[in-house]
Amino acid sequence: MSLISDISVSVDGFVAGPDADLDDPLGQGGERLHEWIFGLASWRDPHGLEGGETTPDDDIVREGRSRTGAVIMGRRMYSGGSGPWEQDPNAEGWWGEKPPFETPVFVLTHHAREPKPMPNGHHFHFVTDGIEAALEQARAAAGDKDVLVAGGGEAIQQYLAAGLLDEVQLHVPPVLLGDGVRLFAAGGPAGALEIDRVVASPAVTHLRYRVVK
Amino acid sequence: MSLISDISVSVDGFVAGPDADLDDPLGQGGERLHEWIFGLASWRDPHGLEGGETTPDDDIVREGRSRTGAVIMGRRMYSGGSGPWEQDPNAEGWWGEKPPFETPVFVLTHHAREPKPMPNGHHFHFVTDGIEAALEQARAAAGDKDVLVAGGGEAIQQYLAAGLLDEVQLHVPPVLLGDGVRLFAAGGPAGALEIDRVVASPAVTHLRYRVVK
Repeated sequence: MSLISDISVSVDGFVAGPDADLDDPLGQGGERLHEWIFGLASWRDPHGLEGGETTPDDDIVREGRSRTGAVIMGRRMYSGGSGPWEQDPNAEGWWGEKPPFETPVFVLTHHAREPKPMPNGHHFHFVTDGIEAALEQARAAAGDKDVLVAGGGEAIQQYLAAGLLDEVQLHVPPVLLGDGVRLFAAGGPAGALEIDRVVASPAVTHLRYRVVK
Repeated sequence: MSLISDISVSVDGFVAGPDADLDDPLGQGGERLHEWIFGLASWRDPHGLEGGETTPDDDIVREGRSRTGAVIMGRRMYSGGSGPWEQDPNAEGWWGEKPPFETPVFVLTHHAREPKPMPNGHHFHFVTDGIEAALEQARAAAGDKDVLVAGGGEAIQQYLAAGLLDEVQLHVPPVLLGDGVRLFAAGGPAGALEIDRVVASPAVTHLRYRVVK
């Protein structure tokens, strides 16, 4: 029962392109970070799509799904950029009518609101009392499974800085975004990792690290 | 006959730690980026040391040495930080009496000066008319071999932005520096790479990309 992060990041270190907003939540060029995943069976299934590739990349996505019992995300990842949320703390965000999450999702925010149901019976829960409280709630929901900090970079970096993160998995497609939202902003924690697993495919490199505490 | 870059970078994207200066040219913690290489036979040899490990990491360093016919570096990499050079354009830098370079080295600078000999018969050449001129001179010196942009990050990014770089090799040890000198500063070129080779060891991951032009 670990706290893990798992995110696609460009070779130059960005998890979204520049000028991300509600219309373009991944920013300019940001969809290129995720192209490696769209064709995979394990991605298509929870998005309501049939078929897809069953490659080693697919195995890794499938593994991530099966071990995840709850998800934590920052409020900007929920709302698709900071703009809409600042204007309306009840903004619905951009995950649409059928969010692809197969577990409860805990959103880090300063605005209290009622849990928002998903059609599959799970809920978005809004946690206003900090990252440790969110983790506690997520662990309770996850049971024996792991808790995933899905993003954005700021949320991952906060859990890392607090010494709470156990594992960092980076999916690195061969892309340079040039600018955008950093996974690791300057002023983050210094520390040591251990290389846990490296899986390479023509489309993406999967780098998994254990955090040394 | 390619133009290649080959540099160690932390998981969070830094090629030197914070507060780099002449006394500490790699910055705080920056030596952790290079610990994977110090024990290798192929690193010890050009530094005048005997013995060392012969591992897959060693093979990669040896390969890099054998294909390199000339080196280009930025002035801060030559002088060990910007401070000394700003005060004295003839500052000797920090490479010491026996620099480890086995080829001519071309230093990008705004200060013209005479070539500086190394004991092995090669020279540091100081090029004041830009990155293309330095590349032309380096290519002439390299013959059939490749030209290596050794660093720092700014020099690599300039050659990449100019469309002159053919290959990017990153050696990524499991280290977080938290802050320091970025390999890829924001505002760099966006573009596509191709994954050429991934070699993993317990100490470091070697990621080699071809630049798509």
